Amino acid sequence: MQTMNINGPRLLAQLQTLAAIGRTETNACCRLALTDEDKQGRDLVVGWMKDLGMSISVDPIGNIFGVRPGSQPELAPVMTGSHIDTVRTGGAYDGNYGVLAGLEVVATLNDARQNTERSIVVGIFTNEEGARFAPDMLGSLVYVGGMPLDEALAIKAIDGAVLGEELKRIGYQGTAALGVHQPHAFVELHIEQGPLLDADGIKIGAVENLQGISWQELTIVGQSNHAGTTPMRLRHDAGYAASAISTFVRDLTRKMGGNQVGTVGHVVLTPNLINVIAARATITVDLRNTDEQLLQQAEQALNEFLKSLSESEGVTITSRRLARFEPVVFDAALTDRIAHHAEALGLSHQRMTSGAGHDAQMMARICPTSMIFVPSVGGISHNPAEHTEPDDLIAGANVLFATLTELANQESNP
Amino acid sequence: MQTMNINGPRLLAQLQTLAAIGRTETNACCRLALTDEDKQGRDLVVGWMKDLGMSISVDPIGNIFGVRPGSQPELAPVMTGSHIDTVRTGGAYDGNYGVLAGLEVVATLNDARQNTERSIVVGIFTNEEGARFAPDMLGSLVYVGGMPLDEALAIKAIDGAVLGEELKRIGYQGTAALGVHQPHAFVELHIEQGPLLDADGIKIGAVENLQGISWQELTIVGQSNHAGTTPMRLRHDAGYAASAISTFVRDLTRKMGGNQVGTVGHVVLTPNLINVIAARATITVDLRNTDEQLLQQAEQALNEFLKSLSESEGVTITSRRLARFEPVVFDAALTDRIAHHAEALGLSHQRMTSGAGHDAQMMARICPTSMIFVPSVGGISHNPAEHTEPDDLIAGANVLFATLTELANQESNP
Repeated sequence: MQTMNINGPRLLAQLQTLAAIGRTETNACCRLALTDEDKQGRDLVVGWMKDLGMSISVDPIGNIFGVRPGSQPELAPVMTGSHIDTVRTGGAYDGNYGVLAGLEVVATLNDARQNTERSIVVGIFTNEEGARFAPDMLGSLVYVGGMPLDEALAIKAIDGAVLGEELKRIGYQGTAALGVHQPHAFVELHIEQGPLLDADGIKIGAVENLQGISWQELTIVGQSNHAGTTPMRLRHDAGYAASAISTFVRDLTRKMGGNQVGTVGHVVLTPNLINVIAARATITVDLRNTDEQLLQQAEQALNEFLKSLSESEGVTITSRRLARFEPVVFDAALTDRIAHHAEALGLSHQRMTSGAGHDAQMMARICPTSMIFVPSVGGISHNPAEHTEPDDLIAGANVLFATLTELANQESNP
Repeated sequence: MQTMNINGPRLLAQLQTLAAIGRTETNACCRLALTDEDKQGRDLVVGWMKDLGMSISVDPIGNIFGVRPGSQPELAPVMTGSHIDTVRTGGAYDGNYGVLAGLEVVATLNDARQNTERSIVVGIFTNEEGARFAPDMLGSLVYVGGMPLDEALAIKAIDGAVLGEELKRIGYQGTAALGVHQPHAFVELHIEQGPLLDADGIKIGAVENLQGISWQELTIVGQSNHAGTTPMRLRHDAGYAASAISTFVRDLTRKMGGNQVGTVGHVVLTPNLINVIAARATITVDLRNTDEQLLQQAEQALNEFLKSLSESEGVTITSRRLARFEPVVFDAALTDRIAHHAEALGLSHQRMTSGAGHDAQMMARICPTSMIFVPSVGGISHNPAEHTEPDDLIAGANVLFATLTELANQESNP
């Protein structure tokens, strides 16, 4: 079976067709979750699922599942999938690639009139990006029981809309039981969204783990004053405090080394004038590590720094938790199989860590899970310039095909 | 003569009447230079000048001078004054206090039917704040020959209007020769706009010098990337570079000590998102020192840091000069007289430096000049909360009265 190849041109064409929905003037894809554009994208892909003869179910959080029945439907199915919502300035591949490659696996099996023992399920998870509703990875989180449905349906969008009402409005609040498919295994194919595969000239990443994420927003309140007339010793400079935190985060990553990364990507000063000491600063701190203990150490070190900075500068610093996910270790045996199939297909490959969050990290709570990465040119993502070479897209889908079909023909549940 | 006191309630009432023009919903004064509100303010104060029997002249840059003739009009006059334009969220006293206290000195002399040997001139300088037209202190700069008139008249406002046209529109482009009054001395009374007098409980500042100012805008261009997937070693983080400059500026002031101050009050990151490494940052650096050589040293040290930071972070940094004024040393004998009159009036006083720019720094180019400061509660200025206690406003005007009348009765030019 591993020598069978998916139909590359068909996959590429479907990716472009989907990318045309919600296309902006700057050539970005804008299909924010549960907007009219998201509905159009869902309708298109559900249509393709039906064309493939798949049976469709939609659950109350709007996750869509297309099923290609196996010859032994009593066995737990093999699942793949991802998301088709985008950020405001999204690219063509983030999420969409994983969903459409899943359909391409089904289409290839259909073309060859090949059965599998287990059913194959292709999932489309609601609001993975978190660009309209927080938190991100919401559909898969609710699917695995990580958030009560009622709580999720009540979430307000950045535009004020309520998630449950938007689901109804676009006709995607279904009645299938949450978690209806308890998979034998879950495999998600995704562009890397980072620079490592591209920089090293490697075609396939066999993802063995996913970074833990710690996001907080810090609000620093100092005292506004004249930049010329206020002696340094009398300052309570919220802007300086913000910059000291940013440089501390950089120093911390240097001291800790390893996988620790840290970013201050958002800074807003008030009043933000050349000759006025800032009264207030709001910044975000993004810390990530593959090791939960090290991530906690980083949070702890930051916390201690904030206390001493608060005292030395005479400012108050308050923290609001925006997100916290523990690192996820994927199923080692499954990651091995991905590497094996890449090897068998003559594709260079490496074990790697996912720096971004994905629906797979939620699915890992309920079944053996791993991910396949393909290169992102220049590591660019969440950007109209997001690009993966067509050959690499096809290669990744072939690895997915080999991995899924092998899993779907495993007789016993693990 | 020094035992004569100005009429405090009259001065306070006039300050409030002027403050009502351009008052905003947040109780700020908004009389941006050469707007309709500025015209209303000018009309009001010119009316008061006429009521005092002063002769009025307006020059081509819109500076207004009211003259109370001395008994020896062939001697160079003594001049005081300041400005009545405000920032967008101005207070009641910044500038206005110096002008109206000057009129109060004249009113007090009129009440007492006292002559002076020299004429007394009260000046209102155009666009001191620089909040609508850059640079600030424009009227006094042009008056002393620091900028050609044509160049000044062609300046565009932040709202697109042209200075010369706005002057004509509000009827304040006069025909008096620029620099028509070559003063025997210039004394400007102003609120401190800093916290020192208030913090130390001192009533009068005898200003002996004024900081040099170095303003630049730095634009840092790095590379936008995913905060999770981009290893620290591959980052070109414009946001980190901005913070490193801000902390460098703070460290520099600590190392240099003395009068060196430095502020990064304005920071804008792009795209300014929690999980995206900033592609671009724009920040301002405000450096001030009373010593020109030390200020140049600070600029030089910053410059060297920018070079090394640019290399180590792999970002480009470009600088745009926004303002550069050398420090000004005021006339020591005149500052002594201000301290003397404060002492004679039983007011606590200290020698001090002006951290803000004032019209007096321009006038210092053409005549012996000094300034009198009164406390700003909490050092707050450019803010509706700007406040000086009424007793302190009256005390400062009494020191101005004593100083001006002494100068106006000095027989020989210095």
